[in-house]
Amino acid sequence: MDKDLAIEGILLGTASAGIRQTERDDIAVIEICEGSNVAAVFTRNAFCAAPVTIAKEHISQQAPRYLLINSGNANAGTGSEGYQDGLQTCQMLAETVNCSSTSVLPFSTGVIGERLPTALFQPAIETAVQNLKETGWSDVARAIMTTDTRPKQAETSFEINGQTITIVGISKGSGMIRPDMATMLAYVATDAEVEQELLNSCLNNAIDKSFNRITVDGDTSTNDACVLIATGKSEFCITQEQVSELEMFQAALGNVCIQLAKAIIKDGEGATKFITIEVQGGQDKEEALEVAYTIAHSPLVKTAFFASDPNWGRLLAAIGRAGITDLDISKVSVTLGDVSLIEAGEPAVTYTEEQGAAVMAEDEISIYVDLARGIATETVWTCDLSYDYVKINAEYRT
Amino acid sequence: MDKDLAIEGILLGTASAGIRQTERDDIAVIEICEGSNVAAVFTRNAFCAAPVTIAKEHISQQAPRYLLINSGNANAGTGSEGYQDGLQTCQMLAETVNCSSTSVLPFSTGVIGERLPTALFQPAIETAVQNLKETGWSDVARAIMTTDTRPKQAETSFEINGQTITIVGISKGSGMIRPDMATMLAYVATDAEVEQELLNSCLNNAIDKSFNRITVDGDTSTNDACVLIATGKSEFCITQEQVSELEMFQAALGNVCIQLAKAIIKDGEGATKFITIEVQGGQDKEEALEVAYTIAHSPLVKTAFFASDPNWGRLLAAIGRAGITDLDISKVSVTLGDVSLIEAGEPAVTYTEEQGAAVMAEDEISIYVDLARGIATETVWTCDLSYDYVKINAEYRT
Repeated sequence: MDKDLAIEGILLGTASAGIRQTERDDIAVIEICEGSNVAAVFTRNAFCAAPVTIAKEHISQQAPRYLLINSGNANAGTGSEGYQDGLQTCQMLAETVNCSSTSVLPFSTGVIGERLPTALFQPAIETAVQNLKETGWSDVARAIMTTDTRPKQAETSFEINGQTITIVGISKGSGMIRPDMATMLAYVATDAEVEQELLNSCLNNAIDKSFNRITVDGDTSTNDACVLIATGKSEFCITQEQVSELEMFQAALGNVCIQLAKAIIKDGEGATKFITIEVQGGQDKEEALEVAYTIAHSPLVKTAFFASDPNWGRLLAAIGRAGITDLDISKVSVTLGDVSLIEAGEPAVTYTEEQGAAVMAEDEISIYVDLARGIATETVWTCDLSYDYVKINAEYRT
Repeated sequence: MDKDLAIEGILLGTASAGIRQTERDDIAVIEICEGSNVAAVFTRNAFCAAPVTIAKEHISQQAPRYLLINSGNANAGTGSEGYQDGLQTCQMLAETVNCSSTSVLPFSTGVIGERLPTALFQPAIETAVQNLKETGWSDVARAIMTTDTRPKQAETSFEINGQTITIVGISKGSGMIRPDMATMLAYVATDAEVEQELLNSCLNNAIDKSFNRITVDGDTSTNDACVLIATGKSEFCITQEQVSELEMFQAALGNVCIQLAKAIIKDGEGATKFITIEVQGGQDKEEALEVAYTIAHSPLVKTAFFASDPNWGRLLAAIGRAGITDLDISKVSVTLGDVSLIEAGEPAVTYTEEQGAAVMAEDEISIYVDLARGIATETVWTCDLSYDYVKINAEYRT
C-alpha cells in the first residue's frame, strides 16, 4: 500500500461523507482522461442495485469520464426512489466538474435496503475532486472497503518492444461473494491503448478466470461491478493482429485480476483458510465447475476446514450430490494437498489421519478432484466458515 | 415420547454396541411380520454409503423382514471393504433370527469415512433381538440419533368404515440435511394393508411434500433412507379404486411425514429459528423451488435470522440470484410474517423497522414471495445459521 502506483491519465480522490462510519473516507472519485476506452461488467443478480442500472445506461450512451463510488450504503432494494437518488449523485459530480451527468458511472456498496443519504454527498464530492491525484489508488482502495479488513491492490508492468506497459487494479469484497460476475467492486487501469471491443473481450477473459472463480458464501451481490480502463497514454497499442503482444497483455491483466480476486477470498468474512479447489477430468467446464462450487459452498466442508479436520467424507458427500447423474464413483480420485484420499473410488491405502491433519493445519490448502470423465479442468477459490463469519453477518447492521 | 405407540405386526428392539458413545443405545432392529409390504426411498447422492447400496439390492430381491440400524458410523466412503462390512452385519442378524441375509436391510448414520466396527455388532444384535417388542418405537427413535438433541416421532389414527387405521413414524437428522431424498433416516409403519405399487406411490407423494422440502445446510447426505411398512394387520385394505379412503390414507401419511420432517428442522444443528418459505406465482414448480432453496441456503439470510435482524435486502439478493433469467422484479412482492416488505418491486411504504423486528423476534417465521409469473406454489422449511452450527460441525469428530 505504500507504493505510489499510477497510471497516466487516471486521477483519483477520496473524501469522508460519513455515510455509515467516519473513521475513513467513504466517497471516491476516479477521473478518466479523454480518449480512454472503458469496459465494464456488472452483476447478473435480477435485483441489481440502482447504481448498476444507472451505470449500465450511462456507459451505453457515452464513454465514461468519471467513476463515483461510495461505501456504507448499497442503494439496492430501494426501488424507483433509489434510482432517482443515484441519478442525483451523478448530477452532483457532473456539476462539480462541469461534464454531462451521463459521463459519470455510479457505484455503491454497503447495506442493502436503506435510502442513500444524498445530502451527505455534495460536500464530499467537492473534497474528493479537490483531492484528485495520480497516486490516489491506495486511498480509493481503502475508501471502498465495507467489512473488508484491508485494502486490496495489485499491479504489474511489462515491456513490449521497449515500451513499458503498466496495469494497476484495486478491489473490495469480503462477504456476499460468489461473483457471477463478481460480488465485489474492482477497478483496473492500464496505460496501454486498447481498442474498445478488444478491451471488452480482454476483461471478460480475465474475469472468467479470476473474479468469476471465487466464492465466500455463494451469495451473488446486487452491486457487483468490475471496470477496466485503457488510457492509451503509453502510446503502445494492443490490437487483435499482434497476437503475441495481445497474449502478454491478456496474461498480465489476468494475473492482476487473479491477485485481486484471491485477495478478496483471503479477506473473506471470518476466513482463516484459503482453499483452492481444482476439479479435473470433467466432461465439460460446466460439470467441473458444478463439482468445485458444490464443495466450495458446503457448510459441512467449510466448517471442517475451519476446524482443520481432515473429515474427507464431507468432500465425498459434496462431490456425490453435485448433480452429475451418471457419475461413476469407482473412477473418482481425491487428493488433499499432496496426500491421496481416494483412488478410483476406494480409500487410499497409504492414507493416515496424521498426513491429512498435517495438510489441514496449513493456512492455504488445495483439493484436487479427478472425475476421470473427460479433459475439462476448473479451479475455484474459497475460504472456510468460521464463528466469525456468523458473528460478522449477524451483527453487520447492529 | 411417553406414549406406547404400536403397529400390530412390527416389533422393535435396541441395544448398545458402543460404536461411538455408550450413553445410549446405538443399534436398533425392527422386525416386520410376514405378508407386509415395504416401500423404501434412498439418497440420490452418487457417493451413497455401503448400507444404501446393500439395502437397494436386498429389497429388489425379496420383501424385507428385518431392518438393522446403527448410529455413530455411516459406513460411507469406505469402498469395497465397507460393502463387505455391511453384508457381514446383515449376515449376523440373519443368523441370529434364522432368516436369509437378503431379507435384512441395513442402515447406518454417523461419521463418514471410517470402517464400521463390525466386531461390536454381534452381541448388540443379540441383545436387540431379545428386546424386540411392539412398543419399542421410542427406544429406536432414540437409538438412531447422532447430533440430534431429541428423538422424533409422530403418529396418527383415523377411522375408515368403522375400522381404525394407525400410522406411526420416527425420524432422525439434524445436520447434512437437504433431503433429496431426505438427509435422514425415517421409518413409518401402518397397520393398513396397502398393495406394493400403491405403497410406493403413497410414500413418494408423502416424501415430496415433507422430507424433500426441508433443508438445514444444503448438504445431501450419503445415507438418507425412508422406509414405509404396511403390515395389513388392521384388515382394512387401501386400494387404488377406493378413492376417498386412499385420499384419507395419503393425507394422514403426509401429515405424519410433515411432522417428522419439521421435527428434523426444529432440531437442526444449532437452530434457533424455524423458518417457512413459501414461494407462489412461479411459472412452474422448479422455479418456485429454486427461489425457495436459494433463500433457504443463503448464509447471509440465515445469519440475519439468527440475529433476528429484518435485513430484507438479503432476501431480495437471494431471490435475484436464484437463476430466473427473465425475472421482472417490478412484479415481485415479499412479505415477512404479516408485514409487507416489497410490493411489486418497490419498498412497501407502510413498512417500519419495528414491524420487521417484531416478526424476526419470533421463534417461528414465515416468508412469502410472490413472483407473479404463474400459479406454481412451493413451500420449504429451514432454520437459521448460528454460532452453534459452526461449533457442532467444527467439533463433530473431536
